[in-house]
Amino acid sequence: MKIAIQGEKGSFSHDAALHMLPNCTVVSCARSAEVFDRAEKRSVDGAVIPIENTLAGSVAEHFDLLLNRDVFIQREFALRIVHNLIAAPGVKLRDVRRVFSHPVALDQCRGFLSKHPKIEAVPFYDTAGAVKNVLENALRDAAGIASKQAAAVYGGTILAAGIEDNRKNFTRFFLIRARRRVLPEANKTSIAFKLKNVPGALFQALSVFALRDISLSKIESRPIGGRPWEYAFFADFLRGDDSMTRSALRALDEVAESVKVLGIYPATKMPLR
Amino acid sequence: MKIAIQGEKGSFSHDAALHMLPNCTVVSCARSAEVFDRAEKRSVDGAVIPIENTLAGSVAEHFDLLLNRDVFIQREFALRIVHNLIAAPGVKLRDVRRVFSHPVALDQCRGFLSKHPKIEAVPFYDTAGAVKNVLENALRDAAGIASKQAAAVYGGTILAAGIEDNRKNFTRFFLIRARRRVLPEANKTSIAFKLKNVPGALFQALSVFALRDISLSKIESRPIGGRPWEYAFFADFLRGDDSMTRSALRALDEVAESVKVLGIYPATKMPLR
Repeated sequence: MKIAIQGEKGSFSHDAALHMLPNCTVVSCARSAEVFDRAEKRSVDGAVIPIENTLAGSVAEHFDLLLNRDVFIQREFALRIVHNLIAAPGVKLRDVRRVFSHPVALDQCRGFLSKHPKIEAVPFYDTAGAVKNVLENALRDAAGIASKQAAAVYGGTILAAGIEDNRKNFTRFFLIRARRRVLPEANKTSIAFKLKNVPGALFQALSVFALRDISLSKIESRPIGGRPWEYAFFADFLRGDDSMTRSALRALDEVAESVKVLGIYPATKMPLR
Repeated sequence: MKIAIQGEKGSFSHDAALHMLPNCTVVSCARSAEVFDRAEKRSVDGAVIPIENTLAGSVAEHFDLLLNRDVFIQREFALRIVHNLIAAPGVKLRDVRRVFSHPVALDQCRGFLSKHPKIEAVPFYDTAGAVKNVLENALRDAAGIASKQAAAVYGGTILAAGIEDNRKNFTRFFLIRARRRVLPEANKTSIAFKLKNVPGALFQALSVFALRDISLSKIESRPIGGRPWEYAFFADFLRGDDSMTRSALRALDEVAESVKVLGIYPATKMPLR
């Protein structure tokens, strides 16, 4: 199967894709919009996208794209984010003067960097891209911070493993596909809805679930582009495609301006450490 | 008054600070944490921070800092984001080959850039910083995209004004101060709360407001660092420091794990265009 990801091969999305679909081939895309384009137009079999990180929060752009594009969530997966210092073979830790990585990754390895004051942190557009840059240019005084997968893809050596400050660092990924297919064991639903601009609208919307003892595992709001100070809501609840869910969604449709089911999929255990 | 802002002088935060406090002097800080440090330790009289943009969404880091730092919101302000192409005096539009700006600003001027295919867009860490870079290095083939204020601060010439694609582009700013002072005309409250990890907790929390006919103008969730898959909620409602607000907050305190009043301040009209 061909799976589109945003960013270079060897990224955490690549890692997550291999966990969900062990034999897949990833197709690297520069921009998230391109990832969704490819999934929608079926030039790939699906796409794997990060949706939230337990330290950094939601990937806002992906919520917007889920709302506006014709794709369906088929699986979720939570990956522990382990950062590694990766250099060209033969390069030693004491040789490293510059380390490239995405600013979020650099920020998540501040403890390691403060213990190595001779190493200068240099922001780069992508974690795996940073390793690619170091290896392709055969830099002898530089390293990248990225996933183990990046070392494997670009032939780098891991000089230090697990250098992230906080081990409670997980990213939740979705596998999205153009075709709406609900797996038999699906027991979790993600929806998006827009509310009418009236007082108490959100309370009314949530009461639809509360009255049916459906517990929301997450709720999130995002501004609606072109409609200043109005928001779309994104919610998850632990039920599959059953009659109770359908009745809740019918009721929500009455109180909301619009409702979209983003996906119905098997819940994975969300790891705590 | 000395007001801290994140980023260079001439930024949209600088512009917003001058709207709220016409005679203030801004103190430029590289990082948002430093802005909050200065406000907390009173090395400045206050700080002006962007909190949400109608196209890009919330400034997540600032929500986290409002929750964790000892500051209080005294005012809000909504600024229309107008992007301008700014170059050194004498430079003409036809001379420009590169344009520097923050990636979000470049993204918001795609229409203009596609009409000028000879100009290459180059990401820069800051909008005003991009103009500073062009002017300080006296570049003759480059320009920056930033606020009018940046042209004034660095002595640049506006080659094209209002080049943003979408005019419905506003950023909401807060004036925060170390001292908890509620202005007499304050009629809007911002709170943050953490919920107990039990089903229906959010519904219970919102019912506190619904039962009192207090309408939430905004609700937002953010992950709690170090507590994977748990969220803090941020909400605004249109009431000041009155008995109804206090009774609602007492009731919320009973159902929530913790509640923090982030500020009570005069509501500004949120412009629609």
